[in-house]
Amino acid sequence: MKTKAVFYHAGCPVCVAAEQNVAAALDPARFDVEVVHLGQNKNRVAEAEQAGVKSVPALVLAGQTYHINFGAGIEVLK
Amino acid sequence: MKTKAVFYHAGCPVCVAAEQNVAAALDPARFDVEVVHLGQNKNRVAEAEQAGVKSVPALVLAGQTYHINFGAGIEVLK
Repeated sequence: MKTKAVFYHAGCPVCVAAEQNVAAALDPARFDVEVVHLGQNKNRVAEAEQAGVKSVPALVLAGQTYHINFGAGIEVLK
Repeated sequence: MKTKAVFYHAGCPVCVAAEQNVAAALDPARFDVEVVHLGQNKNRVAEAEQAGVKSVPALVLAGQTYHINFGAGIEVLK
């Protein structure tokens, strides 16, 4: 069974670059990668916050949250 | 030919956790991942700085630098 990975972003240039490089670099044999645009899916902001996401882009990998560089604080996405 | 990826860290708990999850999650079919402990390899701090590394852990992937969470500023590693 593959491990779940969720990449949260908000469409900013920093986010898109990170998505195209980091999220796409994960091993597809081991990870199911879901990409969530929080600007377009505000109903998922709460879920992201529960996972510990403080800013985007962020990668939640096997339950651990990693903030990658800094595009925008999660507060501005509400 | 595989793309070069370098994961710079300094042995701190934040770094080690990120290494074990993020660096190990990259697709081995597409990436050659090198892990560099800057605390033990101070001669590579300059190279990391040239790549744009400001703090560790950081992942340099296909020439782009990503700072993952925050373990330590690169200044303390000199």
